[in-house]
Amino acid sequence: MNASTPYSSTLLDNAIKEFAKLPGIGRKTALRLVLHLLRQSNEEVETFGNAFITLRNNIQYCKRCHNISDTEICQICADQRRDSSTICVVENINDVISIENTQQFKGLYHVLGGVISPMSGIGPSDLSIDMLVDRVQTESIKEVILALSPTMEGDTTNFYLYKKLSPFNVEISTIARGVSIGDELEYADEITLGRSILNRTPYTV
Amino acid sequence: MNASTPYSSTLLDNAIKEFAKLPGIGRKTALRLVLHLLRQSNEEVETFGNAFITLRNNIQYCKRCHNISDTEICQICADQRRDSSTICVVENINDVISIENTQQFKGLYHVLGGVISPMSGIGPSDLSIDMLVDRVQTESIKEVILALSPTMEGDTTNFYLYKKLSPFNVEISTIARGVSIGDELEYADEITLGRSILNRTPYTV
Repeated sequence: MNASTPYSSTLLDNAIKEFAKLPGIGRKTALRLVLHLLRQSNEEVETFGNAFITLRNNIQYCKRCHNISDTEICQICADQRRDSSTICVVENINDVISIENTQQFKGLYHVLGGVISPMSGIGPSDLSIDMLVDRVQTESIKEVILALSPTMEGDTTNFYLYKKLSPFNVEISTIARGVSIGDELEYADEITLGRSILNRTPYTV
Repeated sequence: MNASTPYSSTLLDNAIKEFAKLPGIGRKTALRLVLHLLRQSNEEVETFGNAFITLRNNIQYCKRCHNISDTEICQICADQRRDSSTICVVENINDVISIENTQQFKGLYHVLGGVISPMSGIGPSDLSIDMLVDRVQTESIKEVILALSPTMEGDTTNFYLYKKLSPFNVEISTIARGVSIGDELEYADEITLGRSILNRTPYTV
């Protein structure tokens, strides 16, 4: 046994190294996960490993909204029951999943693929903004909801999108900012609290 | 999109489900890990998935010590530089890895595959005890170190092994129990502290 492989098996060592490449997984956790897999049947481990390979080899991005998809047009865009006159603009596919989990939005999405960030060298042409403008022009869109992160880059992108989309006959809104439900007021940051007072809504019983 | 798959892609959903089967990994972490894999190249993901499949399909257990191995006899047993007259008896392969990491032990191992536990229905015949006795009889073993967990089951197994091995001309020892290095005395449990007083060692400068 040489010093570079602290385990008695190179196969074991390889498997541990592969897990440890994942974010937030160290060698100890990786070892625990590999030993767990060793207790499963060959078939189960084959299903496990192939799930990622199949995903990576076959995944597509929806030609309409850029969301992750098994087909040319994603399941959300293809769903006739959804309201195709409303587009929710998000930064990436995680945000689609987060919003879908709320079950509060029944329209379609548009995944930008990031936000405008001069610091990171990401300009409007790196994002799917032109395709969004195209959709607003060609599809009968009534409302575009901007659901980007409340950061400087998100606000810059919001402003840019607003400038690009305002010439068209489309309502443009942003998601509400405010104190989170269940949060203690004293722990809310001042900017959020300030905005939540400015954007107060009528009290209804 | 139906209610059972909250994601727009069945492939994505499958990959997330596979990660979420692992211990300590929930759906949110699983999603994060899958999105990480999607940012890697096809080749990297193929290497990732295949590492586990290859491990599961090709792993063997050393015919001599029952440690995990790529070959019939594991790298530790095959290593001529190690002291083949000392056997350290451990519960499972994790313990081999832990002891190897200390770099303090240069002998061979014997992996029992568990401890005697009448509550869980594990008796001596379920463990590789006969093979250990056989090794002590046929190999020229000078010392057997019992390195089982300091639990009731571990102690029971220690006693059983002692009874089985004491007829042979072999030294039997157990790993030292005591206050951990760096531990505050006041936080040590009473049994450990009590044992560490009973088993005190001469002070050397």
